[in-house]
Amino acid sequence: MELRKDPITRSWVVVGQGGEPPLPPDPCPLCPATETGQTLLALPASGAWRVRVTPNAAPLYRIEGEVGRAAEGIYDKMRSVGAHEVLIETPDHDRRLSQLSDHEIELVLEAYKRRIADLKRDSRFKYASAIKNQGRAASAEWTHAHSEIIATTFVPRRVLYELRAAKSYYTEKERCVFCDILRQEERSGKRVVDTQGDYVAFCPYASRVPYETWILSRKHNHQFEEPRHDAKPKHLAALLGRTLRRLEQISDAYHMVLHTSPNTNVNRGLSDYWKTIAEDYHWHIEIMPILPKGSRSYALKEVYFNAVLPEDSAKQLRELEAGL
Amino acid sequence: MELRKDPITRSWVVVGQGGEPPLPPDPCPLCPATETGQTLLALPASGAWRVRVTPNAAPLYRIEGEVGRAAEGIYDKMRSVGAHEVLIETPDHDRRLSQLSDHEIELVLEAYKRRIADLKRDSRFKYASAIKNQGRAASAEWTHAHSEIIATTFVPRRVLYELRAAKSYYTEKERCVFCDILRQEERSGKRVVDTQGDYVAFCPYASRVPYETWILSRKHNHQFEEPRHDAKPKHLAALLGRTLRRLEQISDAYHMVLHTSPNTNVNRGLSDYWKTIAEDYHWHIEIMPILPKGSRSYALKEVYFNAVLPEDSAKQLRELEAGL
Repeated sequence: MELRKDPITRSWVVVGQGGEPPLPPDPCPLCPATETGQTLLALPASGAWRVRVTPNAAPLYRIEGEVGRAAEGIYDKMRSVGAHEVLIETPDHDRRLSQLSDHEIELVLEAYKRRIADLKRDSRFKYASAIKNQGRAASAEWTHAHSEIIATTFVPRRVLYELRAAKSYYTEKERCVFCDILRQEERSGKRVVDTQGDYVAFCPYASRVPYETWILSRKHNHQFEEPRHDAKPKHLAALLGRTLRRLEQISDAYHMVLHTSPNTNVNRGLSDYWKTIAEDYHWHIEIMPILPKGSRSYALKEVYFNAVLPEDSAKQLRELEAGL
Repeated sequence: MELRKDPITRSWVVVGQGGEPPLPPDPCPLCPATETGQTLLALPASGAWRVRVTPNAAPLYRIEGEVGRAAEGIYDKMRSVGAHEVLIETPDHDRRLSQLSDHEIELVLEAYKRRIADLKRDSRFKYASAIKNQGRAASAEWTHAHSEIIATTFVPRRVLYELRAAKSYYTEKERCVFCDILRQEERSGKRVVDTQGDYVAFCPYASRVPYETWILSRKHNHQFEEPRHDAKPKHLAALLGRTLRRLEQISDAYHMVLHTSPNTNVNRGLSDYWKTIAEDYHWHIEIMPILPKGSRSYALKEVYFNAVLPEDSAKQLRELEAGL
């Protein structure tokens, strides 16, 4: 397993077979009675765990060793160093994240926060975040509710583009582009799905797929893992739960990705430019539902085509039942 | 239907429902006996057609009207002006592109060339190219063998990144990055699948999916639609046919995209920078097979993970039967 850089698009690709086969789904390796692997974090701190984090047995990235950047002629490669952890969202085999109570979802988000903050102490890692693949169509590896925590020695391409755009917008206007987007969305209301406290869920203007939904806080902060003193994690948990319950009435599979700023505590490779770029960012959660075939929405030659207007998606989502 | 620009990544998304429903597959609207739509091009010039191009009845882009760029608060939008054509690769309902003779494939490529060159005469279009979705898993709309010709009022994001990378490489080294890649690939030979005359098929170093294959010419040229005087289209057709016959033994579905340089004959919006950028480009064909689920290759948080080393893909493809 190694990381190779595409010399044309400059994005990194993990190539090659993993060392170990993935854990078999039966008996469920995420259930308390049959659990496997070391415990990296368990919440709450005492008593039986409600959320547990363990290393992925078939990781895309390995925690040990140096990055080993090297050339291969005109190409660049490095060892696939990083972290790849499994975050078990509930001990109950048959409950999805959307079916957890607000308090349980808050624990999941707290675990995201703690693992990302911990991984960012490792100066080899330029980026750390959480993703969730829900459902078979999203390539979820086990049916038991889980997320993945991933740390990499590079900033993923899409985050890089977001950082650059936020920086250049800030340089021009001295305002955060995400804050401006949120203000405009709240003013028009057309694409807003739901709100709770300072948090807003909306379908972005140029949604790549029908029902794409983002969750942002009105209060500017670049790092999810270092909340502001006035952040209300309970509100975020409640809004995320309601949003997922709406979306699951449209599609039972989705990708959810937390976008937070890159690690500024790195050995090298991060210039002053990067340190200021991080602060112009605004963390957010992106949820991309996977719709059944034939919805005629697809990436055509890397141009996205989305057959449903985001304002229609938002309207439909608003009207759906969001209760537990 | 309109085009909306993602303010963060700056890519354009086509959103909204098309005006007409797509043509029903039965009776086949691409077969000579039941054909529909105007004929934009038919090859050969006389006698029964072997290749025919017709407007898409449910187009993503419409040919009429002005681009109508406008703001919507902080967002940018424009009318979905462009061209969207269906290129019927053979009159025979049951033959795939891979099953055509070299001469028939040459006619398909000749039709690509003529339609792209024609669309580039329209100064509203910044980009024109050909794509092909083979198989249901690639969202092919009809089973009858066809490609799509598409012209847009913007340069697709991936092509933009390629243009920038090629330009910056050229500025630094005064050499084309694609030519350098090809030279290194031919020297090592590990990832080369097949060659014919000046054309080479190989699996790129940082392949995004297993068996991804590119076809390039050793002779530098930025525009597919304006071949060099010494280009041998027959060689390209033969190599494409053999490559597709190899790939279809791995997967019966794939996306094929022709990457050519942007239109420099535009009204506005294309600076001198763009005119020189176009010439540092190198046209090529990218083929991305769609593998069955469970191959554990996926885009994780927009980081590609590819479980098969490109050199192993190339070796396997070389060893497969390529004859008709």
